[in-house]
Amino acid sequence: MHFATGIDRKLSIPLQRQLYEQWREAILTGRFRAGERVPSTRELAASLSISRGTVSEAWDQLMSEGYLETAPGSGTFVCRELPDNLVLSRRANSDKASGEVRVRLSRYGAGLTEDWRPVSSGRGVIRFSAGTPDREHFPIALWRRLMGQQLRRLAPAAFDYLERSAGDEGLRAEIANYVSRLRAVRCVPEQIIIVGGSQQGLDLSARLLIEPGDEVGFENPGYQGARRVFTAYGARLRPLPIDASGVVVRGLDRKTRLVYVTPSHQYPTGVSMSLGRRLELIEWAKHSRAVIVEDDYCSEYRYSGSPLPSLQGTASGAAVIYVGTFSKVMFPGLRIGYIISPPSLVPFFKRAKSLADTQSPMLEQAALARFLAEGHMERHIRRMRRLYGLRREALLDSLWKHFGDGAHVMGDAAGMHAMVRFDDKGVMRRAMQNKVELVSADGYYLTQSPKNEFIFGFSALPERAIQEGIKRLSR
Amino acid sequence: MHFATGIDRKLSIPLQRQLYEQWREAILTGRFRAGERVPSTRELAASLSISRGTVSEAWDQLMSEGYLETAPGSGTFVCRELPDNLVLSRRANSDKASGEVRVRLSRYGAGLTEDWRPVSSGRGVIRFSAGTPDREHFPIALWRRLMGQQLRRLAPAAFDYLERSAGDEGLRAEIANYVSRLRAVRCVPEQIIIVGGSQQGLDLSARLLIEPGDEVGFENPGYQGARRVFTAYGARLRPLPIDASGVVVRGLDRKTRLVYVTPSHQYPTGVSMSLGRRLELIEWAKHSRAVIVEDDYCSEYRYSGSPLPSLQGTASGAAVIYVGTFSKVMFPGLRIGYIISPPSLVPFFKRAKSLADTQSPMLEQAALARFLAEGHMERHIRRMRRLYGLRREALLDSLWKHFGDGAHVMGDAAGMHAMVRFDDKGVMRRAMQNKVELVSADGYYLTQSPKNEFIFGFSALPERAIQEGIKRLSR
Repeated sequence: MHFATGIDRKLSIPLQRQLYEQWREAILTGRFRAGERVPSTRELAASLSISRGTVSEAWDQLMSEGYLETAPGSGTFVCRELPDNLVLSRRANSDKASGEVRVRLSRYGAGLTEDWRPVSSGRGVIRFSAGTPDREHFPIALWRRLMGQQLRRLAPAAFDYLERSAGDEGLRAEIANYVSRLRAVRCVPEQIIIVGGSQQGLDLSARLLIEPGDEVGFENPGYQGARRVFTAYGARLRPLPIDASGVVVRGLDRKTRLVYVTPSHQYPTGVSMSLGRRLELIEWAKHSRAVIVEDDYCSEYRYSGSPLPSLQGTASGAAVIYVGTFSKVMFPGLRIGYIISPPSLVPFFKRAKSLADTQSPMLEQAALARFLAEGHMERHIRRMRRLYGLRREALLDSLWKHFGDGAHVMGDAAGMHAMVRFDDKGVMRRAMQNKVELVSADGYYLTQSPKNEFIFGFSALPERAIQEGIKRLSR
Repeated sequence: MHFATGIDRKLSIPLQRQLYEQWREAILTGRFRAGERVPSTRELAASLSISRGTVSEAWDQLMSEGYLETAPGSGTFVCRELPDNLVLSRRANSDKASGEVRVRLSRYGAGLTEDWRPVSSGRGVIRFSAGTPDREHFPIALWRRLMGQQLRRLAPAAFDYLERSAGDEGLRAEIANYVSRLRAVRCVPEQIIIVGGSQQGLDLSARLLIEPGDEVGFENPGYQGARRVFTAYGARLRPLPIDASGVVVRGLDRKTRLVYVTPSHQYPTGVSMSLGRRLELIEWAKHSRAVIVEDDYCSEYRYSGSPLPSLQGTASGAAVIYVGTFSKVMFPGLRIGYIISPPSLVPFFKRAKSLADTQSPMLEQAALARFLAEGHMERHIRRMRRLYGLRREALLDSLWKHFGDGAHVMGDAAGMHAMVRFDDKGVMRRAMQNKVELVSADGYYLTQSPKNEFIFGFSALPERAIQEGIKRLSR
């Protein structure tokens, strides 16, 4: 039986990801029968003439998701009980049962690809998951009180259907105040549109601005959530390399319609964009009448030096769409983010938002406005900054202790994660063996990626867990 | 000065709407100067050779939104102080100031048109606004308790970034239970995707299935929120007439890729679709391999007879996307709705949702799951059904009392609004004069609309207000 076909080195998709998707699909479609024995990583690597590490990375993923299972002594098999794919298996059945019609998808629909989900964590697993805030230290009692106030008298705003696609007036005013003070963003409240997290901010931006075939300048490596949105709308991504001064914009021309950047803490490298580079980018945008999308996802957390003001605040004369989120400073499940739009695009963002989902939930917006107005946000951020700063130090100390100068930490002292390159080739395998959930940087590259780069989210882990986690990687 | 140009009778846009948009745009762009005197409805009607009623409807809208103002005795003028358009006026300035770049919009963006917003209500105005639930009778204390439970221990679900684009597991299970019991929908929880109200359900459906140029069968008159979504994605709408048995599907062929219907209480006419028509539609969908989108927006409210089960439950072998919402039975600001997808489309809806906004807010979902699990939903709906039933009677009685058989009420004894056609031509003018907010049915027609049809939302108004409102229309 032939286990993998069409591995394509020219694709921007990392090899282990191609393997993972092929195997998964083959298992789900029944091409590989449940219980069927699969060859060893060694045999596979040889037959495909790729590195064994690549094979076992894809393979470990399939095991952790329950597509493959090992029987002690006797090898590895296609799982007898397929997990969380009820849908897909039921699909097969109910299609037959109901003779369900196969419908034609739109270009957008047909282009959607399976997400590369993080390994779901089991008992005793240490998860270095990026961008997740600390749950224990969120002022939940305070938030409950503010929500309670809103719930006590359900505001009419929550009840009628008057046009509120831009969001709660009070919240927009507080955000304008917040971003101008903390990020030197220049805006009036009317330029702010409340959205369902930065993801919706990116989706609406792409929807309003991207035609299939348009060229989008994209950081390489760069944020997958943004990449998936732009490619889903048919954009051709032009990889922009990252160096010590941030994204390299030299060579951008009028063919590029939009550039997506994360200047304050480049995702995932953590490099912050130099002023020179910012001005270079702004000049280019002015002259080629292009749009800059600035994703300022976690600028609040900076542990040394002072942050540069937002690109938006520096970029007079260029069209900058500033995308902010409360997922990092509050919690992801809140689903509140915001777009700060150039004035001329505001009416379009409002309409796009109202077509997309009418408006975002109103009660949280009102409660969040109070949270900001009463100064809780800045207090909370100060506390978290101290906490996360110590956790970052714990990460760096442990890396030094166990890997010495064999672990290269990239980027600035900022954010909620650090990207690290190891000389040691065995880190991922030990992570899998010793129950450490680690995200490889491979998935973030548009081009073939350097090996042994990983993203360590430290914000949700106590220092002791961080130390233990790094220790496990070194064994 | 020439006040209106390019009134186009061939357009599906009602004339008064065309006028409204032209005038508004001319005022905002400064083509009509602030303080400038405008001619009388009589002069205008004559110069454009359209009915005076049409002119004054558009004009009343512009006044109520503050673009025009009257000075007693001396006539009507362009407002000196333009309202809620800070943005647009600031745009003008800041464009000059910052030399803001004019960016090219995508086809989607460029196609967006201004919403036809309801008149914003002032003091003493009686608003017959459709689809708005009653605020006073919502069990707010109970909802606060359930939300409080969720807030007490912020569920980890709200904090991490694990894949939850389909929504809260518990809620999906409760909904599967709810719709199979109340609506005879046939599904498993895995077919349910939680979305931000039915609006997002429609947006994701269109996104996955509609290519620019595709033909979509659309009820005429039909729901504007759906119409805007489909046309924004470039669909060509094929108007399907409504008769006493609901939407007329005869004549649909393979050119039509998708049909959008509201079978349980057609919006806005209120007619419910006969079983014969349903089977006819399903047969057509099977053979032309097309998709049916069933918007079941307020099937919970039926005041006589028993409702037909959902189209989805009847349609084995055809691809039906069932869209449901909690905006009517809970409150619109909650922004929770759901898609029940054919099994083969589930993975695509999940991915589209995760690209659109990752997932819907988690806490409400968990609280809503409890609200359903503890049986509060059905109790609440029973109470509201009684309440709304009485209000509908009050509406019909008042119409009879003041208009006799000059008011023709359409549709079944169901829903939260009734569509009424008047023989009397002066209803809209008296509504404006006597502070009654009334929605004309014109905007819901794809073709030239019959005159004097209005949509009376009765669910949010006490009986006394309903009686007073109708009385005001008759004076």
